[in-house]
Amino acid sequence: MLIVMKAGATQKDVERVIETIESLGFRPHSMPGAGRTAIGITGNQGSVDPAHFENLPSVADAIRVTKPYKLISKDLRPEKSIVKVGNATIGGAELAIIAGPCAVENAEQVFSVAKAVSKSGAKFFRGGAFKPRTSPYAFQGMGEDGLKILADVREQFGLNIVTEAMDEAGVDLVEKYGDCIQIGARNMQNFSLLKYVGQTRKPVLLKRGLSATLDEFLLAAEYIMAEGNYEVILCERGIRTFAAHARNTMDLSIVPAVQRMSHLPIIVDPSHGTGRNYMVKPMARAGVAVGADGLIIEVHPQPEEALCDGAQALTPIQYLELVRQVTAIYEALSLAEENQIEFNTKEAIVA
Amino acid sequence: MLIVMKAGATQKDVERVIETIESLGFRPHSMPGAGRTAIGITGNQGSVDPAHFENLPSVADAIRVTKPYKLISKDLRPEKSIVKVGNATIGGAELAIIAGPCAVENAEQVFSVAKAVSKSGAKFFRGGAFKPRTSPYAFQGMGEDGLKILADVREQFGLNIVTEAMDEAGVDLVEKYGDCIQIGARNMQNFSLLKYVGQTRKPVLLKRGLSATLDEFLLAAEYIMAEGNYEVILCERGIRTFAAHARNTMDLSIVPAVQRMSHLPIIVDPSHGTGRNYMVKPMARAGVAVGADGLIIEVHPQPEEALCDGAQALTPIQYLELVRQVTAIYEALSLAEENQIEFNTKEAIVA
Amino acid sequence: MLIVMKAGATQKDVERVIETIESLGFRPHSMPGAGRTAIGITGNQGSVDPAHFENLPSVADAIRVTKPYKLISKDLRPEKSIVKVGNATIGGAELAIIAGPCAVENAEQVFSVAKAVSKSGAKFFRGGAFKPRTSPYAFQGMGEDGLKILADVREQFGLNIVTEAMDEAGVDLVEKYGDCIQIGARNMQNFSLLKYVGQTRKPVLLKRGLSATLDEFLLAAEYIMAEGNYEVILCERGIRTFAAHARNTMDLSIVPAVQRMSHLPIIVDPSHGTGRNYMVKPMARAGVAVGADGLIIEVHPQPEEALCDGAQALTPIQYLELVRQVTAIYEALSLAEENQIEFNTKEAIVA
Amino acid sequence: MLIVMKAGATQKDVERVIETIESLGFRPHSMPGAGRTAIGITGNQGSVDPAHFENLPSVADAIRVTKPYKLISKDLRPEKSIVKVGNATIGGAELAIIAGPCAVENAEQVFSVAKAVSKSGAKFFRGGAFKPRTSPYAFQGMGEDGLKILADVREQFGLNIVTEAMDEAGVDLVEKYGDCIQIGARNMQNFSLLKYVGQTRKPVLLKRGLSATLDEFLLAAEYIMAEGNYEVILCERGIRTFAAHARNTMDLSIVPAVQRMSHLPIIVDPSHGTGRNYMVKPMARAGVAVGADGLIIEVHPQPEEALCDGAQALTPIQYLELVRQVTAIYEALSLAEENQIEFNTKEAIVA
Repeated sequence: MLIVMKAGATQKDVERVIETIESLGFRPHSMPGAGRTAIGITGNQGSVDPAHFENLPSVADAIRVTKPYKLISKDLRPEKSIVKVGNATIGGAELAIIAGPCAVENAEQVFSVAKAVSKSGAKFFRGGAFKPRTSPYAFQGMGEDGLKILADVREQFGLNIVTEAMDEAGVDLVEKYGDCIQIGARNMQNFSLLKYVGQTRKPVLLKRGLSATLDEFLLAAEYIMAEGNYEVILCERGIRTFAAHARNTMDLSIVPAVQRMSHLPIIVDPSHGTGRNYMVKPMARAGVAVGADGLIIEVHPQPEEALCDGAQALTPIQYLELVRQVTAIYEALSLAEENQIEFNTKEAIVA
Repeated sequence: MLIVMKAGATQKDVERVIETIESLGFRPHSMPGAGRTAIGITGNQGSVDPAHFENLPSVADAIRVTKPYKLISKDLRPEKSIVKVGNATIGGAELAIIAGPCAVENAEQVFSVAKAVSKSGAKFFRGGAFKPRTSPYAFQGMGEDGLKILADVREQFGLNIVTEAMDEAGVDLVEKYGDCIQIGARNMQNFSLLKYVGQTRKPVLLKRGLSATLDEFLLAAEYIMAEGNYEVILCERGIRTFAAHARNTMDLSIVPAVQRMSHLPIIVDPSHGTGRNYMVKPMARAGVAVGADGLIIEVHPQPEEALCDGAQALTPIQYLELVRQVTAIYEALSLAEENQIEFNTKEAIVA
Repeated sequence: MLIVMKAGATQKDVERVIETIESLGFRPHSMPGAGRTAIGITGNQGSVDPAHFENLPSVADAIRVTKPYKLISKDLRPEKSIVKVGNATIGGAELAIIAGPCAVENAEQVFSVAKAVSKSGAKFFRGGAFKPRTSPYAFQGMGEDGLKILADVREQFGLNIVTEAMDEAGVDLVEKYGDCIQIGARNMQNFSLLKYVGQTRKPVLLKRGLSATLDEFLLAAEYIMAEGNYEVILCERGIRTFAAHARNTMDLSIVPAVQRMSHLPIIVDPSHGTGRNYMVKPMARAGVAVGADGLIIEVHPQPEEALCDGAQALTPIQYLELVRQVTAIYEALSLAEENQIEFNTKEAIVA
Repeated sequence: MLIVMKAGATQKDVERVIETIESLGFRPHSMPGAGRTAIGITGNQGSVDPAHFENLPSVADAIRVTKPYKLISKDLRPEKSIVKVGNATIGGAELAIIAGPCAVENAEQVFSVAKAVSKSGAKFFRGGAFKPRTSPYAFQGMGEDGLKILADVREQFGLNIVTEAMDEAGVDLVEKYGDCIQIGARNMQNFSLLKYVGQTRKPVLLKRGLSATLDEFLLAAEYIMAEGNYEVILCERGIRTFAAHARNTMDLSIVPAVQRMSHLPIIVDPSHGTGRNYMVKPMARAGVAVGADGLIIEVHPQPEEALCDGAQALTPIQYLELVRQVTAIYEALSLAEENQIEFNTKEAIVA
C-alpha cells in the first residue's frame, strides 16, 4: 500500500500517517517529492485496509500496489531521485563520472590515476580494495590498507570514493572509509548482503547481475530500500550472452526501461560491459546518449601491468579524451531535449 | 592470398595481375582504394604460391591470408567502403537514415509516411513487400504490388528504396523495383540466397541473425562478396538473450568490433532491436553515438493499427523528433572527433 | 477452426465437410486418427462461422482455435503421429536411429559407415550432399554426385536416406534421390523454403534453429503442414547460449514441451547438440531417457580426417557401443512405462 | 604444484612432504587415492621450485599446474571422490536421491513428505529454512525453527539433511542441525561465503549459478577446497537462456564435462532446472542417463498450496513413480556399462 499526501500536507500530517502505519505493525517509507509526499508501507503479509488512512488529515489517496515492487517505483515518487554521494550528487542535471583503477594496487598507482580523474572534472573515484575474483589464487585486493589509500585520495583531491564490499565486515570498513558502497554483479542477489547495506546510511551502487532480468534488478534495489536505505544508484555493466567479441554484452536498453518504471538513477559501466579497451570510448558515448545519469570507467597508468582487468582499462590520456567526447554528447543532448519542449509546444500550436 | 599493388600502379598493371589470377583458375576481387589497389583471390583450395605474382610489374606484396575472411577485411581495403544506394551513399561523412513502415500495406499509408521521411531530410525509404512472419497465418506482404508502390515513392519523393527479399524470385523483383536488397536476420545464413544476391549488382543490406557471432556475421557478408558483389552494408538489429524487457537485446558493441576488422559500413536498427516504441529514440541516439553509419527506423501513421510490428513503430512526429536528436549528437560527435585530432597533435607536441 | 467428426463418421461425411470448407474458399486439412477424424481449416482471414458445419452429418464439434498453430496441435490429432520414411517409421514403438557421416565425401567413406549403421540395426542413414558452411571457402558438399552415392547406400543396405536441402533446386534433387528432406537449423525460418517442402510429398526432418523458441519451432512446422505436407519430424540439435564447454547447449526439456502440445514426433541430435565426441554417447542416452522418438548421430571412419565436423563424429565402434547403451535404456524405460500403468491402477484400487 | 607420492609411500613419507610445504609458508592439501596419494600446494604467489621435493623419500613426481584449478582436478586425484553426507555417500555406486519440499513450512508438511521420501528408499532429505527470494516481500523461510523440524526428520526417518545457508550466521546453524550445507545458485560466486564454508567440516552442495561457465563453476568449488574442505558435491540446476518453455534450461552436457576434468561428484536438479511439474520426471530420467551421481527433487504434499515454487513440486505419488523410473534406467545403464568392459575386451581380442 501507498499513501499519497495532499500537496499542502504538513510534517505533522505526514507523521500522523507514519505513526498509524507503525501502530499496525508495519514499516513506513516516507518519500518527500517536489509536489507531494508519498509513504510506502512494507512488512504487511496480506493487503492493508485503506480505511485506516483515508480519513487522516491531508491524505489524498491510499493506493493498493499490485506490482512486486513498491519503493523503487514511480508510483511512490514520480520525479527522479538525486542521490547524494559525499559532496556531490548522482541523478541530477550533471553527468556523473566515476573513474579509477579496477583494483587498488599501491599508493603511487592510485594517486597517478586520481590526478587524471581530478583533472577531468569528475567528482567520483573508484578502486577496489576487496576484489571478487573467479579464481581463489588471483589477487584478492589490499583490504583495509587499500581503503586507507582511497581515503587519502579523497583528502588530497576532494574526490568522492566509490568502492566495493563483498561481505558484512567489508561493508563496515567501506562505511568507515568510503562515500558509496558498491555491490558487485556477482552479489546482486546476495540477499543477506543487500539487507545489511540497507541498514547502513551510505549510498549504494548496485551493479546488475550477469543474468539478471529487469525485475530481479529492481527487486534487488527494493531489498536495500525495504531496510530503510533509499540512496540506491543502479548500474548496467553488461550481461552474459553467446556473443564473444566482447567480454559481456552491454544492454543499454535497460536504461530507458528502468527510467520508465523507477525513480532511481542509473549509470553504465562500459569497462566491465565490454572488457575491451578499444570499445570503452564508443560504448561510453552510447551510454550517455541513451540517457544514463553517469559512467563508471576503469583507468590505469599502465594497463598492461594491471593486477586485474588490464585488458579493459584506459590510459589516463585515453580517459581524458573519453570525457571530452561524452561531455560534447551530453551537452548536445541536453540542448536537444530543451529544444524538444519548445518544438513540441510549437507543434501543438500548429496542430 | 592478397596482392597489394604499389601506389603508382597503372590500370594495365592491375589487369596483368587479374589475368594471372584467372589463368590459375582462381577468382580476382579488385578493390581500388585511396592510396593503393589490392586484389583478393578466392576459389583456391590450398595456398597459392606468391612466386606467381612477386615479379609482376607494380606488385608491392603478395600476402597469405590466415583469417577465415578475405574480402570484408581491412587487410584488403584499409579505408572504409562507401556504398552507393540509388543516388545517395551509406558509409560516407553523412549519417544515413532509412525510414518507413514495417510492411507496405497500401499506397495511402506508404505515402503518408514517405512525406514525413522526406521532410526529415532522410534519403532512404524502407517498407516490406515480402514479410518473414513467424506464423504462416500472419500477413505475408503485398508482393509485387507493394514493390510498385515503393517505386512510386522513389518517383515522387526522390527517396531510395531499401526492401527485403526472401528468395530468388523476390530478389529478381527487388532488383527491378528497388535500390537496395535487404536480407533479413532469419536469412543471414541462408547461404543459397546470399550467393544469389552476390550475383546481382544491387547493394545488399545484410541484417545480423538473432544468434550470429561476429565471425558468422562477417562471413555471411563474405559469401555475398565472394560472388563479386562488394556493395554490402551490415546492420545490427538486436540479438536473442534472456532479457525480456525488450524484444531483442541490441548489441551496440558490435559496431566498434566490425569497424576494427572490416571496411564495410554498419548501421543499426533500434526498431527491431528493441521492439518497444519508447526505446527507439534513446537507442537510436546510442547507435549514432557509438559510431554507426546510419539508422533504420520504422514509422507508421497509426502504429496501433499496423499489420506488422506496430508496438515498435514511431508516429511521424516521434520520428521527426528522433531525427532532430540524433542529428545533434552526430554533429557534436563529428566536431569532437575533429578536435580530437588537434588535441592529439598538441599532446604529441607537448610530450 | 477445427471440425471434429463423430467416431462413426463415414468417408462421405468427411468429404462433405471438406467440400464445404473448399466452397468457402478455405483449405481443409484432414487428420484421421485412431478414434476420430478432425479437419483443420486454414486460409481464412478472420474467424469462420461454425454454423456452416454444425448441422452437417457426423460433425461432433466445430472448435475455434485461439492458439497461433492449428495443424501441429494435439487439438487436431490427440494421438501421436507416426511418420513413414521410406520403408520404416519414426514416432512409433521403435526407437528411430539415423546415423551416418556429416558430409558425403566419397563412396568408400560412405559405404564404410553404412556397413556399421546397418550392423547396428538402425534403419536410417544420414549424410549431407549440400553443406551449409559458415565460410564460403569451406567444403560445400558434393551435390548431386553425393546424392547418387546415398541412393546406392539405400540400394545396397536397405537404409532409408535422410539428407539436407538448402534451396528449391536442392529439394527437387533430394526428393528424387532421398527418403526424407532435412531442413537445417539455419533454415528453420527460411519461410520460402518451408513452403516449398510443404508442397513435396516426402517427409521433412525439421531442425530447431539455434535461437528458436518453442513457438517459433512449432510454427515452422506449421508452415510446412499448412501447404499440405503433414509428414514432419522435429529435431532438437542444441541452442546457442553463453556456455562454452560444448559447441551448443542441448535443450532436452523441449522434448516433453513439444510432446505436451503437438502430435509430431521429435528426435534429438547429440552430435551437433554438443559438438564434442566424448559427450555424444552420454547425451544420446539422455535424449532417449527424456522420451525422444529417435536419435541422429554422426559417424565417420576417421573422424580426425573428416571434411566437416570431425570433432563430434563417432568412430563406427563408438557408435555401436552407443546403440547398445541407448537400446538398454529404451527397453528399461518402455518396461517401466508399461509397469507404470499397472502401478497406477493398483494405486487407484488401494486409494 | 602437485606432489605425487609413489605407490608404497608411508604415512611418514607423506607427512614429511606436508611439513616441507608448510615450512615454505604454503598450504598442503593431501588427497589419498586408491593407488597413490597426491598433495596439492596452494598459497604460493609464483611457481614453486620442484627441487624442494624431488629428493624426499617416496616422492614420484613434482608437477607444475598450469590450469587455473588445482584441487578439483583429476591430476590431483584420478579416481572419483565419494563424499560422505551423514550416514550415506554421494558419488559412489549408488544413485543418490535428495528429496523434500522447497521450503520448510511447518512440521506436518515436512513429515508428510519425509514419509514418502523414506518409503522411496532415498537417503537424503532437502528443505529450505533460509530462502533466497527474488522479492523482499516473499516468504523468507522459517529460519532456525525450520532447521529444528529438519533435525526431527533425521531423528525419526534416518534421512540425512541437505539445506541451504545464505550467510555466515546461516552456515553456523546449518552446521549445527544439518548434514550438508547447500550453497544456492545466486551465491555461487559469493566468494566470502565460499571461503566460510570452506572452513567448516560439513560437506557442501554447490549449485551452479544461472550464468556460470564450466570454469567459474569449478573455481567456485576450488574456493571451498582451498580452505581445506574437500567434501564438495556439484549440482547442475539449469542456466538462463532465451528459451521460455521452461523456467531455466538444464545443461546436462556439463555432467560429462565435469567428469572429464574433476573427481568431484555431480548431481542434477530437474525441479529448479525446469520449473515445470510435467518436465521433472523426464528430465530426471535424462539426468540419470547422462551419468549424474544423483538427483535433487522437490516434493510437496499439495504443490498448488506451496509457499514457494509450487509449479515445479511433485506430489508424493508422482515422486515415487519418478524414483521407480530412474532406478530402472540407472540399473540398465550400470549393466550396460559392465557389459561394455567385456564387449571392449572381446573387440580387442578380435582386433
